[in-house]
Amino acid sequence: MAASGPDGARVEYEALRGRVLFGCGARAAVPEEVERLGVRRVVLIDGLLDGAPARELEDALGARRVATIGDVRQHVPAALVAQARETATATGADGLATIGGGSAVGLAKAIARATGLPILAVPTTYAGSEMTPIWGITSDGAKTTGRDLAVLPKTVVYDPELTVSLPVPVTAASGMNAVAHCVGAMWTASANPVTDAVAAEGISSLAAGLRGCVRDPGDLGARTEALRGAWLGGAALAVGGTALHHKICHVLGGAFDLPHAEVHAVVLPWVVAHARERGVADAALRRVARALGAEDAVEGLRALTRDLGLAASLADLGLDEAGADRAAELVAEAAPSAPVPVTREQARAILAHALRGE
Amino acid sequence: MAASGPDGARVEYEALRGRVLFGCGARAAVPEEVERLGVRRVVLIDGLLDGAPARELEDALGARRVATIGDVRQHVPAALVAQARETATATGADGLATIGGGSAVGLAKAIARATGLPILAVPTTYAGSEMTPIWGITSDGAKTTGRDLAVLPKTVVYDPELTVSLPVPVTAASGMNAVAHCVGAMWTASANPVTDAVAAEGISSLAAGLRGCVRDPGDLGARTEALRGAWLGGAALAVGGTALHHKICHVLGGAFDLPHAEVHAVVLPWVVAHARERGVADAALRRVARALGAEDAVEGLRALTRDLGLAASLADLGLDEAGADRAAELVAEAAPSAPVPVTREQARAILAHALRGE
Repeated sequence: MAASGPDGARVEYEALRGRVLFGCGARAAVPEEVERLGVRRVVLIDGLLDGAPARELEDALGARRVATIGDVRQHVPAALVAQARETATATGADGLATIGGGSAVGLAKAIARATGLPILAVPTTYAGSEMTPIWGITSDGAKTTGRDLAVLPKTVVYDPELTVSLPVPVTAASGMNAVAHCVGAMWTASANPVTDAVAAEGISSLAAGLRGCVRDPGDLGARTEALRGAWLGGAALAVGGTALHHKICHVLGGAFDLPHAEVHAVVLPWVVAHARERGVADAALRRVARALGAEDAVEGLRALTRDLGLAASLADLGLDEAGADRAAELVAEAAPSAPVPVTREQARAILAHALRGE
Repeated sequence: MAASGPDGARVEYEALRGRVLFGCGARAAVPEEVERLGVRRVVLIDGLLDGAPARELEDALGARRVATIGDVRQHVPAALVAQARETATATGADGLATIGGGSAVGLAKAIARATGLPILAVPTTYAGSEMTPIWGITSDGAKTTGRDLAVLPKTVVYDPELTVSLPVPVTAASGMNAVAHCVGAMWTASANPVTDAVAAEGISSLAAGLRGCVRDPGDLGARTEALRGAWLGGAALAVGGTALHHKICHVLGGAFDLPHAEVHAVVLPWVVAHARERGVADAALRRVARALGAEDAVEGLRALTRDLGLAASLADLGLDEAGADRAAELVAEAAPSAPVPVTREQARAILAHALRGE
């Protein structure tokens, strides 16, 4: 019955403002929502391989759309940002719309950070970036990230119909990424009653929805439930600071170029197991277990990963023992404090488990 | 597994911004929080009978406090508002702080609506008004209410230590009022995944916390848990529109002057029973039951009311059969649509049960 922060400490919480539309067919409201934002000249950022959803949006926006940017890449390269800013300036844009996953939203945020343009996001994965004021830009191989309320999308339109074509492996990995956001939000210093509730509900929705999506990718009910969980995961991510799990994944993604979402899925149960062994974040672990309908958080997460057919080890994703050594060093160099600080040896032990998946 | 509104309809949600501090001793941060708001001349509105907590705040605020208003009454009489505005103007106030329950916050909101002054609230009951943009003013016996983002407190400081002296009957009634807000938020048209999660968690916290407070009013752990639930209840109330339960209580409070919070506690299980009989708001009722750890929402609410030693009938609160007739008419004249519209006869049937408590 922990009533305040992860360690019973005082809670400090800044609720973020934002407008959300959610439901099958909700994308039809995009022109109206652009109007509501007072935007008359919108640049559309299209992060999808399939051009059809963006064409549909373009048609609906009509003359209000002044350009479409289709060159979207992971980790938001600075060169792309400069180019996209130029497009926005040249066309006299007064707003940005995105359709796609975290990379499309990331590019829009990078432009918004420099220009203050409002963003309307139409997410098509479970990344959750659309609910957060967190931005990131990669330059010379290094990613700089930060928080800025100016980059928080003003309006988010979730339409489960747009997620039906998301391939099963991407669905599973992107979904486990969202689960990791929920777990992370519960044990950072920013944890609070509102986000604890949102994160727990997010885990339940994701677990049920993702299992349904993997059984039948075309099941619109399951897609709706999973996207509902992704919304909640994004809201949880918005408050979570940098915690151990995120740090490990960041290192593995940055220095070893392992795939972001898949890494999350493999690493998460081992970080949770480490917290359990160290006897920290008890309340959070009980909450995670309950949300998964499991006796134990680690077992519940492992069962989910298995059911979703995800890689069981970092070796499967391409890491080797030497890589794990180097990664442990990088993690320990700037180990975050939540759920518990780790030494190089402890980080190496977590990575040893994750590497072999046992 | 309803993934959108109460009837599966599309969800539209406006998250509200706001800063919350929560924890034992959090009130010590009030001067710092006033500073953070950029407020230099604050009027303190003191809604407590015991003057000590306001004196403590006055001491902490020092020269930054330009006046204290101690004349606070239920339902925010217009004459009091005019007087309080005059005080704010005469002292050149640039901000308002409140300590007390819903009536203190209500008075501050009425001033803020006219002047735009920012509000910092230190709640001492479970009313939840501090989390909402809903204002109300009573003039010539009629209460006008509305929504205005300008009246939403910018900062809320919850300190469980301030609630330890709340008498048990007020604790129980004010707490059931908060439970009613949580239930109501689940079946209005504004229901959405975020507030569903928050409301469910609110019910769980309130049920556990209030039972603990009634057993031992000085139990700071139970007080913390109950206030945690009240925060969540306030957040739920902020999105809930006018639903049937609220309407019935409003009529009984307005036309018959029955006590607001006590009426909520008696009426709630009967409105939920009505929804159950009519077969509406199924998902919400399952969610309420789960949050109460009960098989059935109605039984769970009745058990909670009993455990809290609350009045079991409106007759106990002073209503008679003729009053119930008149109240049923008033409810039916402007029956809200959630969870389901009622005729005069249906409203009378609900009131008949609540009147006799059987």
